[in-house]
Amino acid sequence: MLNVLTPEEALRLMESQFQPRQFVTEDAQVGDVLAEDVIASECVPDFDRSTVDGYAVLAKDTFGCSEAIPAILPVVGAVQMGERPDFSLTPGTCAAIPTGGALPEGADCAVMVEYTEDYGDGTIGIMKSAAPGQNLIFRGDDVKPGDVLFHAGHRLTASDVGALAALGRLNVRVHSQPLVGVISTGDELVSPEQTPGPGQVRDVNLPMLLALLTQWGVKIRDFGRVPDDEPLLLERVRAASEQCDMVLISGGSSVGQKDAVCRVLESLGEVLMHGIAIKPGKPTILAKTGDGKPLVGLPGHPAAAYYIARLFVKPLLDRLRGEQHREQTVTAKLTESVNANHGRAQITACRLEQRDGETLAVPIRSKSGLITQLARADGFFVIPRDCEGLPQGAAVDVILNH
Amino acid sequence: MLNVLTPEEALRLMESQFQPRQFVTEDAQVGDVLAEDVIASECVPDFDRSTVDGYAVLAKDTFGCSEAIPAILPVVGAVQMGERPDFSLTPGTCAAIPTGGALPEGADCAVMVEYTEDYGDGTIGIMKSAAPGQNLIFRGDDVKPGDVLFHAGHRLTASDVGALAALGRLNVRVHSQPLVGVISTGDELVSPEQTPGPGQVRDVNLPMLLALLTQWGVKIRDFGRVPDDEPLLLERVRAASEQCDMVLISGGSSVGQKDAVCRVLESLGEVLMHGIAIKPGKPTILAKTGDGKPLVGLPGHPAAAYYIARLFVKPLLDRLRGEQHREQTVTAKLTESVNANHGRAQITACRLEQRDGETLAVPIRSKSGLITQLARADGFFVIPRDCEGLPQGAAVDVILNH
Repeated sequence: MLNVLTPEEALRLMESQFQPRQFVTEDAQVGDVLAEDVIASECVPDFDRSTVDGYAVLAKDTFGCSEAIPAILPVVGAVQMGERPDFSLTPGTCAAIPTGGALPEGADCAVMVEYTEDYGDGTIGIMKSAAPGQNLIFRGDDVKPGDVLFHAGHRLTASDVGALAALGRLNVRVHSQPLVGVISTGDELVSPEQTPGPGQVRDVNLPMLLALLTQWGVKIRDFGRVPDDEPLLLERVRAASEQCDMVLISGGSSVGQKDAVCRVLESLGEVLMHGIAIKPGKPTILAKTGDGKPLVGLPGHPAAAYYIARLFVKPLLDRLRGEQHREQTVTAKLTESVNANHGRAQITACRLEQRDGETLAVPIRSKSGLITQLARADGFFVIPRDCEGLPQGAAVDVILNH
Repeated sequence: MLNVLTPEEALRLMESQFQPRQFVTEDAQVGDVLAEDVIASECVPDFDRSTVDGYAVLAKDTFGCSEAIPAILPVVGAVQMGERPDFSLTPGTCAAIPTGGALPEGADCAVMVEYTEDYGDGTIGIMKSAAPGQNLIFRGDDVKPGDVLFHAGHRLTASDVGALAALGRLNVRVHSQPLVGVISTGDELVSPEQTPGPGQVRDVNLPMLLALLTQWGVKIRDFGRVPDDEPLLLERVRAASEQCDMVLISGGSSVGQKDAVCRVLESLGEVLMHGIAIKPGKPTILAKTGDGKPLVGLPGHPAAAYYIARLFVKPLLDRLRGEQHREQTVTAKLTESVNANHGRAQITACRLEQRDGETLAVPIRSKSGLITQLARADGFFVIPRDCEGLPQGAAVDVILNH
């Protein structure tokens, strides 16, 4: 077969053929990818603040004080939240201050209320000496103008949304999420709601791929199931490629179907890759339309479609939305040896177990099982194509199913 | 302060006071939590299938064959995808079969097309002997009726959605996602879009909490910001608690504000807890309305609000939606010692670094920094309250920011 690439070559091809989309929005949501660096233009905090409830004082007024001999200071004011104090401290005075309150001029530290006593006569006793700067966070302590908080390509977490809000930068430019169309093809497929007739199977790939894409935060469009009818498939894929930024076509399992998907992709654009040297997942096709959109033909077998989506579609999507793809893995120790075929990478499903403080990967020995790989596995690992197998006890990087 | 609980007591209190909601839907989506066990009622696959493209044969017809001496068999049919073969094999014959095709009666294995030659005269040469069962997956190999696939309380991943589709069980009963209302309170707060005046700060908690809840898959309702005005706050919290299944009120930072939130919660239900022995995050309040809904008062400091949401609000939400809460952590080695205060748990923000194949946790030494903890940390770890600190090199379980 022409154009069978290694997994590494396939990833490099995607990187070289597809560019981050230029569309950006200025309404950053969690999960969006930054289209620009975020550089602070102001100080956080923007004023000197107390980190405790208590009293703003001059540290030197408290030197040497104790529970036995408190420093007795008249209260000259109370700091209000959200206001700049309209008074200042002179030596030998203090002011009530809440956590987060702005430090009045003249004060240089705050004393926790727990170490004070209110005598009720307008004076406060300070029981513990304080050092200048104590219990304060100064203007710009956290961030100063010019500090780079995030680089373009960073995917926003909820805590990042908090940081952007603190800086007034929720309007940062982010890549708009691509719209991905999904089509399932194969004469043998019936809707998951239907009871399959003889020789038929329920269509797993369409709901599974839509669920995966939902989790990845992209926009989805369901183009349904198409029987093994080339003109019909061509029409459906063309419609999807016109409406969407990327199209996934899964199936078919038979030789004729595979050829049909390939011919359809050839007639709609340039086929860049026809097969990946990985098992399962070899019958994966990548094409590019005239206007630069990726069309991906995925294997019909659901477990294979799932693995290829995780290993190749996700990085491609991340490329389109400007994100630096990074797969999070769990390192685990193989409970038994696993054989592999030289010449192609091999995907092995596994369960994870915790035993004696170690994370163990238990390979799932099944034939082309669907459920065993989708429902009963915790994840999978990839044995590189130049490796003939892994011994018991070897460390593997497990990609968790999600 | 009355009713200050340890973190463990707080979690047990939530478990004992709140029950999974009874509302279920029958339209399972990725991220939903199962309200029932999923037990297979049929076989997967439902018929004997080939796992290769090639020819269905009787194994004994191939015994002893080789490239030099192929077994020559007449083709009596071609299996079509999605159909039960309308023919059967007699000894000494073969039939074309695609991957996933139903095995015709009489055949007991499949030979890959790569090991065959089509002579073009209606006969096929088989170059390699095959064993009975080879390249087949039999009816029920993957799942048999009665097999338990998932237990109630399991949260559905995309691969699980695939498994449910394979079984025709996308209509499984799942807990409906709770609707959570969020209110932010404090005189010092301005909208993140505004430039704060003297003593004011941007409201970080409202957008951050909404982003967290979005990531957790629950439904959200934004009840906005309320100044430090008790009647107004009461009215807003009452409206939210009537409309939602759970309400989060963040702030205020000052003593007066804290008291106001507490009084409001007292007047709307029973205050179950007033403070957690954890730093930061002590001023956390948990109340229960007459109709059993949780109302949570979160600290005003955004980093503290974030930690409390991760450590306590998430388990509470999982309880409401029937999920077994499980926090995924990354084990890392401390690059330096960290002191802690005996008597309360301590949260420490950290960055993660990979060095010499090890994951290292670099504690972030900052005062009450916002950005340093939200944007510059990769996560945080908790030092238990009975521990006075951790030495350099100690292993910590880091909860990743998200």
